[in-house]
Amino acid sequence: MGKGDAPGDRYPAQPRHLTALGLPLPSRDALPADLQKYFRICEEKIGFLPNVLAAYSVDEKKLRAYSGLYNDLMLDESPLSKLEREMIAVVVSSANRCYYCQVAHGQAVRELSGDPTLGELLVMNYRAASLPPRQRAMLDFAHKITATPEAVVESDRAALRDAGFDDRSIWDIAAVAAFFNMTNRMATAIDMMPNPEYHAKDR
Amino acid sequence: MGKGDAPGDRYPAQPRHLTALGLPLPSRDALPADLQKYFRICEEKIGFLPNVLAAYSVDEKKLRAYSGLYNDLMLDESPLSKLEREMIAVVVSSANRCYYCQVAHGQAVRELSGDPTLGELLVMNYRAASLPPRQRAMLDFAHKITATPEAVVESDRAALRDAGFDDRSIWDIAAVAAFFNMTNRMATAIDMMPNPEYHAKDR
Amino acid sequence: MGKGDAPGDRYPAQPRHLTALGLPLPSRDALPADLQKYFRICEEKIGFLPNVLAAYSVDEKKLRAYSGLYNDLMLDESPLSKLEREMIAVVVSSANRCYYCQVAHGQAVRELSGDPTLGELLVMNYRAASLPPRQRAMLDFAHKITATPEAVVESDRAALRDAGFDDRSIWDIAAVAAFFNMTNRMATAIDMMPNPEYHAKDR
Amino acid sequence: MGKGDAPGDRYPAQPRHLTALGLPLPSRDALPADLQKYFRICEEKIGFLPNVLAAYSVDEKKLRAYSGLYNDLMLDESPLSKLEREMIAVVVSSANRCYYCQVAHGQAVRELSGDPTLGELLVMNYRAASLPPRQRAMLDFAHKITATPEAVVESDRAALRDAGFDDRSIWDIAAVAAFFNMTNRMATAIDMMPNPEYHAKDR
Amino acid sequence: MGKGDAPGDRYPAQPRHLTALGLPLPSRDALPADLQKYFRICEEKIGFLPNVLAAYSVDEKKLRAYSGLYNDLMLDESPLSKLEREMIAVVVSSANRCYYCQVAHGQAVRELSGDPTLGELLVMNYRAASLPPRQRAMLDFAHKITATPEAVVESDRAALRDAGFDDRSIWDIAAVAAFFNMTNRMATAIDMMPNPEYHAKDR
Amino acid sequence: MGKGDAPGDRYPAQPRHLTALGLPLPSRDALPADLQKYFRICEEKIGFLPNVLAAYSVDEKKLRAYSGLYNDLMLDESPLSKLEREMIAVVVSSANRCYYCQVAHGQAVRELSGDPTLGELLVMNYRAASLPPRQRAMLDFAHKITATPEAVVESDRAALRDAGFDDRSIWDIAAVAAFFNMTNRMATAIDMMPNPEYHAKDR
Repeated sequence: MGKGDAPGDRYPAQPRHLTALGLPLPSRDALPADLQKYFRICEEKIGFLPNVLAAYSVDEKKLRAYSGLYNDLMLDESPLSKLEREMIAVVVSSANRCYYCQVAHGQAVRELSGDPTLGELLVMNYRAASLPPRQRAMLDFAHKITATPEAVVESDRAALRDAGFDDRSIWDIAAVAAFFNMTNRMATAIDMMPNPEYHAKDR
Repeated sequence: MGKGDAPGDRYPAQPRHLTALGLPLPSRDALPADLQKYFRICEEKIGFLPNVLAAYSVDEKKLRAYSGLYNDLMLDESPLSKLEREMIAVVVSSANRCYYCQVAHGQAVRELSGDPTLGELLVMNYRAASLPPRQRAMLDFAHKITATPEAVVESDRAALRDAGFDDRSIWDIAAVAAFFNMTNRMATAIDMMPNPEYHAKDR
Repeated sequence: MGKGDAPGDRYPAQPRHLTALGLPLPSRDALPADLQKYFRICEEKIGFLPNVLAAYSVDEKKLRAYSGLYNDLMLDESPLSKLEREMIAVVVSSANRCYYCQVAHGQAVRELSGDPTLGELLVMNYRAASLPPRQRAMLDFAHKITATPEAVVESDRAALRDAGFDDRSIWDIAAVAAFFNMTNRMATAIDMMPNPEYHAKDR
Repeated sequence: MGKGDAPGDRYPAQPRHLTALGLPLPSRDALPADLQKYFRICEEKIGFLPNVLAAYSVDEKKLRAYSGLYNDLMLDESPLSKLEREMIAVVVSSANRCYYCQVAHGQAVRELSGDPTLGELLVMNYRAASLPPRQRAMLDFAHKITATPEAVVESDRAALRDAGFDDRSIWDIAAVAAFFNMTNRMATAIDMMPNPEYHAKDR
Repeated sequence: MGKGDAPGDRYPAQPRHLTALGLPLPSRDALPADLQKYFRICEEKIGFLPNVLAAYSVDEKKLRAYSGLYNDLMLDESPLSKLEREMIAVVVSSANRCYYCQVAHGQAVRELSGDPTLGELLVMNYRAASLPPRQRAMLDFAHKITATPEAVVESDRAALRDAGFDDRSIWDIAAVAAFFNMTNRMATAIDMMPNPEYHAKDR
Repeated sequence: MGKGDAPGDRYPAQPRHLTALGLPLPSRDALPADLQKYFRICEEKIGFLPNVLAAYSVDEKKLRAYSGLYNDLMLDESPLSKLEREMIAVVVSSANRCYYCQVAHGQAVRELSGDPTLGELLVMNYRAASLPPRQRAMLDFAHKITATPEAVVESDRAALRDAGFDDRSIWDIAAVAAFFNMTNRMATAIDMMPNPEYHAKDR
């Protein structure tokens, strides 16, 4: 309990479950060797195993499918920088109000940009951030395809081209924004909780 | 031109492009053997190669990542029937007004259900369909996680459990609904056009 | 039951009722001679009596008032072609997600345009269609007066004039769009079902 | 100019045009005798000719079709009282923010109810009014079919039945609410202005 | 009861309570002398004590805090005329559908402008009013910061500057619009009813 | 610049201006003695002078009016704890996506609750937090009066009473929620930036 002054302030600790579903997780040792190695690498690079990977380990095939797509989009070569991809992730996750993804990718923006304020701005309202026109156009597109996908037309693609993006980059902006519209909904639908370690990192 | 009676009726043919992006596609022969085989199997089963696969062939890794996830969710084992998964696909795609996915998965519902009317109902307004409580609950959840993901809470999962779904099924309902929130946005963002063959099938 | 593979797939047939209201319909013979003739002409031209006319036959005065307005707007002389009027009908009905009107007027667009794809596009998302600027402006106006009527101002009428419409045409665009905002809501409010014959026509 | 104190307060008089369209109106004498008589009766009963009738006189057939439907719904026999029909008119017109119809039918509610406050409440926010359950249910249905027609389902009709309405009454609630969704949009689309006499009546 | 013709028309009188909360009000004599004087001045100028002041008298400190802010914003010096500030009040209150504030400030617009029609237009749909560009820009900003505050950016301030407002005026437009977003919600949250005398004034 | 890897990552520092308006601020020494003292007390308690107070010092009367209301609502006696009032502040500010208030009051929740996670949850999506029914009801009311004020009715007040709140508490919940609907819009309208010190506090 904090410095509050009323009985109502004795609220419970915030949720620590992996997800709201009661699905049995395999023991770490039971995973195939390559996945055990993948998890160890994650832990070394990030400092802990992201809960999303623990949650997907409920089914080996689903874990491979999910992480294959994630790694291609977020870590593999792209005309977009890793920071730009994380910025899209946060803006999409904020529009969808996905708690898991705002926490995890907000931290990534803080780390990759070296600017904790930028991470907060993208979580809270990206329109208040100072951004070069290229990134403003990128985030406007990501926000529109998230919030009103039915209204995206050729002039929206043209705005990206006007901001200097080629068609290969447009594919990646679209693909990253689309991907987080999936993961946001999966995480919210099963109430996936982020690792608490994210909160204090890179502040 | 049809039976219309004014100059305005001489409008252009509807779009036939694969996508609005000018990305070079590899020749079919240049694909690795396993992907060539995968495409041939698709053509045999469906009668043509779905444009989404042709579009993703722009990048072999992206094609593998996308089709890996698709096949796991839509074709592999699940407590949901294939028809149920396609019903979710159509309701999500209708909420997002994705032209490609409404066309392709609307056809799948017509084919798998043997009821052309059901396909139309799910495209146009799933609330007007006659559905058993189990499928109504499933589609209500899929629609809500699509339209107002920020508002999905425990009582929404409880409604699925009340309708008879176990937690493994809830994962799959969530995962399929989430997946089409991705593909809908990718298809719309790059203006992917469906194969015209879908329109007349299973009417 | 179709090719699905789970118990959930044994869902009931889709609704066949005329409306959800238990109002007694007069026998066809009890209608005045001119209405009997009107119904016969409809059947000859369309191949069946549209359910909307059967439903309105519950009250002779209401049937005359409704069909009088319908015939004036959709069949009588107008600077808009019949196809253009049907295109407005479908776009409005899609925005309101009226099942009856999307089915019946989607078929009319397929028939009048000779292009089944156009009918599907207008049902699913008219923004994805290839349209000349005149028809794009017409449908944008029809969509806006449907979805956000409070926001329609002089610049919206100016956009129609810029696209070549005179004030008489603007009246008709407004009147047709307004009319389907009525019929969509009447059909949905009483759950009016379309004749099943529409589904397979002109595919 | 009023008691304001800045140059900005010298704004122009509010609009007095019939509509924003430049369509020639026939002289009153040129109308067929029955319509001349209809207009005279309106003037005698209301004190002036409502602008909507003047506007529709641009086309005799359209005038007959419009007024035929209006008179059947609003003036003819119905299980709903005339006041109830006007209450629906105001709530629908307020949801659509149609200036013409809020003015004209707000006055009708003030006159028929003898309660000027009720007219204001229905224009401004019907949820703040004191209403018996029957009329609350009626207005909730009218509001929902106006604002979110796609979401109206059987439970909405059941709520009307629970409030004591039979199916014939449900038809009329639906028909009146639907009608004003048409006229609201027609009036807004062509910027139809109400007669200024309405403003001070029955305050 | 009015001229209606059905049992449903015998509805109860509209609400006369001060608020929906059962909080004891101090007797007028128990108020400090300066507040008694303030209330007397209000009654002399307006003809009655506005219910909002009676409601806030439940707590002397809250009454002072509220009226201090109100008087500074609405009655003190400003580059905006009093009428302009009342116009903002009505447009904001209409967007939020606050019954109390639409009634009270609609009357103020009628009185200050000497134009009863203007008051009605701003309550019903300000977009239908004839306004000079300065006031249109002012009301567009007030409406946007009310309805979609998250989307207000530099170009919205630029539009005010283009319409001739300096930064001191922009502060006041923002402050008045923001203030009514507070009072609208307070009045609605506790169901505060306006004095009935407002309805007939300045018609 | 952070660890990003593309030219796009060299974006400008985030905004440091007090507001987007070019209004001259008085020197601190020019303020009346009591306000100088008030500012010193703020600095001692908080560690810095909140930018909102610096911004309002543009006008002494406005500063007094604003801080008088703020202090009464947030710091004075209330049946709500200070933490509860800050929780309302964050949920309202998140719904309105006000950057300033989410930053400043998010920090206050972290500090008063001693739970950094709670602050993040309320910024990102309060529905994902673990809360006792009392606080859930309080935040649901605050969110509804913010997002859809027109729809708040007696049953919403009843839900607060069912959760144990008396009418005096309902006043305060309403007043605090209403207040942040004002300050959120003022801060966004003039692009007020929060002190950077908030970001790292109480993580």
